[in-house]
Amino acid sequence: MTDSSARGVYVAALTPMNDDLSPNRAAFASHCRWLLASGADGLAVLGTTGEANSFSVDERLALLDALGEAGIPGRALLPGTGTCAIPDTVTLTRKALELGAAGVVMLPPFYYKGVGDDGLFAAYSEVIERVGDDRLRVYFYHFPAQSNVPISHDLIERLLKVYPTAIAGIKDSSGDLSNMLAMCERFPGFGVFAGSEQFLLPVLRAGGAGCISATANVTVAACAEIYRQWQKEQADRLQEGLTAQRLAIQSQALVPALKQIMARHSGDQSWIKIRPPLMPLAAEQAKSLFDALDATGFSLARAA
Amino acid sequence: MTDSSARGVYVAALTPMNDDLSPNRAAFASHCRWLLASGADGLAVLGTTGEANSFSVDERLALLDALGEAGIPGRALLPGTGTCAIPDTVTLTRKALELGAAGVVMLPPFYYKGVGDDGLFAAYSEVIERVGDDRLRVYFYHFPAQSNVPISHDLIERLLKVYPTAIAGIKDSSGDLSNMLAMCERFPGFGVFAGSEQFLLPVLRAGGAGCISATANVTVAACAEIYRQWQKEQADRLQEGLTAQRLAIQSQALVPALKQIMARHSGDQSWIKIRPPLMPLAAEQAKSLFDALDATGFSLARAA
Repeated sequence: MTDSSARGVYVAALTPMNDDLSPNRAAFASHCRWLLASGADGLAVLGTTGEANSFSVDERLALLDALGEAGIPGRALLPGTGTCAIPDTVTLTRKALELGAAGVVMLPPFYYKGVGDDGLFAAYSEVIERVGDDRLRVYFYHFPAQSNVPISHDLIERLLKVYPTAIAGIKDSSGDLSNMLAMCERFPGFGVFAGSEQFLLPVLRAGGAGCISATANVTVAACAEIYRQWQKEQADRLQEGLTAQRLAIQSQALVPALKQIMARHSGDQSWIKIRPPLMPLAAEQAKSLFDALDATGFSLARAA
Repeated sequence: MTDSSARGVYVAALTPMNDDLSPNRAAFASHCRWLLASGADGLAVLGTTGEANSFSVDERLALLDALGEAGIPGRALLPGTGTCAIPDTVTLTRKALELGAAGVVMLPPFYYKGVGDDGLFAAYSEVIERVGDDRLRVYFYHFPAQSNVPISHDLIERLLKVYPTAIAGIKDSSGDLSNMLAMCERFPGFGVFAGSEQFLLPVLRAGGAGCISATANVTVAACAEIYRQWQKEQADRLQEGLTAQRLAIQSQALVPALKQIMARHSGDQSWIKIRPPLMPLAAEQAKSLFDALDATGFSLARAA
């Protein structure tokens, strides 16, 4: 059983792109710096929201290096490193450790369906053994709707027994609060992060670690406020307002919606660029998004 | 509308591995040579059966180069090149063209779910434009159970209109014969390959191109026999026997089962090696597989 050191509000940071859809490393570092300045405890870069799977391994390594070069502290990072191919997962995980990352968020090898806990146990074990580094802290990525490869509690238990230090926690993007609460109860010290700030308060109250959220790219200040005040009575009211914003944003496809919001609030339209198969929102979708969001009283605390 | 040149029995070739689970390039080339000698019209290497998604791009490039160096004719190849990341798909597709491949089998960017035909149209278009090579022939890979990203007939029609030469056909691994027959009817000249030799005969009779099959790694001779005789009456009886063998094999997880069969018939136990999350069959699974297969009168025509 581990005592997770990563706690608080982690933003699944967006990845800005150039006109040719190459990653814009400078804008990426700048966005990450802004998120930390806006109250993020850390950055879960290169996750689903960061479109990691749309980038080659070399592009991902270059993005991680860009953060190091920009002076983003490694301990603030929880990079996504899980791919379908063990050598790629190992390469990305080693780079994260080289930068001093607090941990990595590791998707299961998501191409393979129905492989069962034995197959997933073997896959995670193989990566941990190959990385072979005592500093490694793995956060599972449970996102059944996107990966179609859920992480079961039995799998967590088996891996915790063999790798009590390396297995550090989970990002639960199932949207199922009862699953998050059950893990908080069953695995004390295991860092349970809600995959949405909608569940930040209940997960903290259950002893969880916080949230790792896509929408925190634009709600980071409100998330941080709840994390500061979660033991106080007013936290419920804050959570209510934050949840309304989250729901407004996720009424549209999440990554395009977030890039659209960044474009509006920064005035920089290049934020909209996104790699296929993801697509920018159509005009009427953007309007519907902004209408829903404005109705919540949303404002981006600082310009990007 | 294209006139597909790839026709007949294509084997989704297995990838043999060394003890450290690195790809065994020499054994791979040797297996591919054996498949061609056993009657395969071509090789759909680095597909699901070839565990392509378990390999880094560099490992896949090295495997393709190994075939070139071993003298496997490029025109016999339909390599799998579709990944989640456009730059990786482009890199692999260019390598296939460099080797003179007849075409490529291209998975959609499978991490992204529910992106719709607009997103998939943009993704395939972006790859075709970036590859920018008149020799390119794309075969879609429709495998909803594994990729969770189906290829719709409307998407095919849209892409055929814009890229009538580059869009060449499809591997349909849905197991749904009616879908294959509908495409044969709707898209004359479009190369419809059944994803299983179970449907070889009906697809050929409907004007389809043939099959691209995992189990053809061990049934290649029988597949080739049907392809030679499909216009004759005895083809039905041959198909019946072949279907029985296919069903016996797919009673177990397909890739481990095929590696197990290769190990038994070649006497080379290293065939069993497989990358997690796929796992070798347990002893009782292997026994059940062999019992089912032996009951069909199966024999591997030639030792590997």
